[in-house]
Amino acid sequence: MKDVAIVGVGTSKFGNRADASLPELAFEATKEALLDAGVGISDIEASVMGTANQFLAGASQPGAIMASYLGLSPKPSLTVSDACATGSAAIRAGWAFVKAGIYDLVLVCGAEKMNEIPTTTAIEMMSLAGDPKWEVSQTGITDAGAYAMFAKSHMHNFGTTERQMAAVAVKNHKYATMNPVAQFQKEITIDAVLKSKVVASPLKLLDCSPITDGASAVILASGEKARTLTDTPVHILGVGCGTDTVALQSRESLVGLGCAVEASKQAYKMGGVSSEDIDVACVHDCFTIAELMAYEDLGFCKKGEGGVFAESDQTYIGGKIPVNVDGGLKAKGHPLGATGVSMAAEITKQLRGEAGRRQVTGAEVGLSHNVARHGTHCVVIVYGRK
Amino acid sequence: MKDVAIVGVGTSKFGNRADASLPELAFEATKEALLDAGVGISDIEASVMGTANQFLAGASQPGAIMASYLGLSPKPSLTVSDACATGSAAIRAGWAFVKAGIYDLVLVCGAEKMNEIPTTTAIEMMSLAGDPKWEVSQTGITDAGAYAMFAKSHMHNFGTTERQMAAVAVKNHKYATMNPVAQFQKEITIDAVLKSKVVASPLKLLDCSPITDGASAVILASGEKARTLTDTPVHILGVGCGTDTVALQSRESLVGLGCAVEASKQAYKMGGVSSEDIDVACVHDCFTIAELMAYEDLGFCKKGEGGVFAESDQTYIGGKIPVNVDGGLKAKGHPLGATGVSMAAEITKQLRGEAGRRQVTGAEVGLSHNVARHGTHCVVIVYGRK
Repeated sequence: MKDVAIVGVGTSKFGNRADASLPELAFEATKEALLDAGVGISDIEASVMGTANQFLAGASQPGAIMASYLGLSPKPSLTVSDACATGSAAIRAGWAFVKAGIYDLVLVCGAEKMNEIPTTTAIEMMSLAGDPKWEVSQTGITDAGAYAMFAKSHMHNFGTTERQMAAVAVKNHKYATMNPVAQFQKEITIDAVLKSKVVASPLKLLDCSPITDGASAVILASGEKARTLTDTPVHILGVGCGTDTVALQSRESLVGLGCAVEASKQAYKMGGVSSEDIDVACVHDCFTIAELMAYEDLGFCKKGEGGVFAESDQTYIGGKIPVNVDGGLKAKGHPLGATGVSMAAEITKQLRGEAGRRQVTGAEVGLSHNVARHGTHCVVIVYGRK
Repeated sequence: MKDVAIVGVGTSKFGNRADASLPELAFEATKEALLDAGVGISDIEASVMGTANQFLAGASQPGAIMASYLGLSPKPSLTVSDACATGSAAIRAGWAFVKAGIYDLVLVCGAEKMNEIPTTTAIEMMSLAGDPKWEVSQTGITDAGAYAMFAKSHMHNFGTTERQMAAVAVKNHKYATMNPVAQFQKEITIDAVLKSKVVASPLKLLDCSPITDGASAVILASGEKARTLTDTPVHILGVGCGTDTVALQSRESLVGLGCAVEASKQAYKMGGVSSEDIDVACVHDCFTIAELMAYEDLGFCKKGEGGVFAESDQTYIGGKIPVNVDGGLKAKGHPLGATGVSMAAEITKQLRGEAGRRQVTGAEVGLSHNVARHGTHCVVIVYGRK
């Protein structure tokens, strides 16, 4: 089996991108990744495209539209679609192609355009990732509704507070101001979060990630190929993927995501590392409670202590484990299919020491954690400089 | 890199399956594949789910709904979605996971439920796989419309006739009567095809594959694992994938599919075989003209001779290369995400000598050819008994 490394990354500006179509966003990210890797589009042997939601795209094979626009035909491609975990799922597929020795240089590009339709419709379309019988048809529960249930359970079981959740939003907005591609470029306060409009109690508007257009791309290379291209490859040390029941009522617990625990266990084992070794992490903070649960599911703190951990500043740069210093889904934005890829792009920059004002000094091992819907699916990837 | 073999296959009854939901169809196919392989669901290490169209499913992560219903959580999964080539694209991803040595036993299940919404709506949703700017928004071209353009071009360039195209439908309906899971169970005549209602001239109703609900599953194993499970593994010798521009107006030619030529070239090379070595093939006959073009693109006959080849009986059992003896998309049915998987299931049965009345005697090398939309994407797989 071959080693796999990231040799180029690119991320489009995230936000309301009425100026660009889905394939144009993919181009923006891919062009940057190619320049970063020092290769041309003709050097790419195969691609994996990630787009989460056909309803949002108004297209039933959006990956083909992207690959075609990028000038990749007649080369092999694959479209992956695993809701909000699509980006990392696409990397996982690309990683397997390189690891198997099938290709030596693979482009993975994730993109989503979420502002083409009214926000309420977009939220309804995303909610179609739930259990079709009960969650979609009967209760009409949205993603915010599901995460509100997680939050209520976490508060009930562990005494977690709305203020602790708000601390996540404050941190992620702070770091977004240091990330030029982030959707939001202003800091917020705990009070602003607590006073923002209730979306699904206890979650308020500023506890929620936004509707975002954007794309991100990474170029994966076999170890040998990577050595010919760069002196600073970022190695994919471990990849884990876990799943859980789609229906929430079938779960044993609503205070954490079983799929994330499973995915991290696999990724740590394959990478030969533990949570203690992680120097910087991008986790799936679609809602602030999701970041608290991620701290626990990934082993950054003990079960039930996520709230206290969030308030302790241990997830800031300089703390025990800096988390979402790119702004996270909350403030960088969350263009579904692009999100996981942009996490890999951020970790790559961090491990290369190229993250500018948000650099975690001396970061050698990084992690990304990307979740679908309310925990149906999770991909965790561990990255290393060596 | 590891060898990869198919050790179990199962296909649900194809047709209007108002009696079963999408995950129930997946269960029907998977149960049969597990029994065929002699393993339990707990032996499966990871899965790849293929569903083509979220609009048809009314769900934005249908693969997770299937995996959850099958009891596969917390195990790794991946959802692949490449329009009508989804099934083979899913196999290609599963094959990479096994080839890379990541898993030894992987379930690939493709499913689609197309009768939940009115047929006209379903056709509109499928048409969203076209070029968004010109084909979808401006001309509103459907799949039948695109293939009608291929047919007109082929007739103009090579003198191909409507009668020659009809011969494909007659053959495939004949063999469908020998396949218990096939949607149509009656033979038709050339005259019936020629007299059927025009859908998009020159294509008539009986030139078109139907709207179908169904699922199919294959279980992939590493060579070592396969040896512990069966004496008749079917080896995946070569896998190719090609793409083409989504927009038809960007193509050089409308008398064949560049993606299929590319995919077959890769698959033949990897498998160390040529078109001459293929004993039995399943090709993507979404419309009769598509099967004629496939004969040419795959090298079963020369360019332009597809029509004459179809009329010559060389694609019947006993001929040079029996094609679609399971009934093909035309008469077995075409549940998008399931189609490519059902091709692999058929070839597996043929190479094992278990195809009953439709058995191609002594078949040792088989091929499947699965195309997305009007040739945006194609996966060709070559299978061997040894």
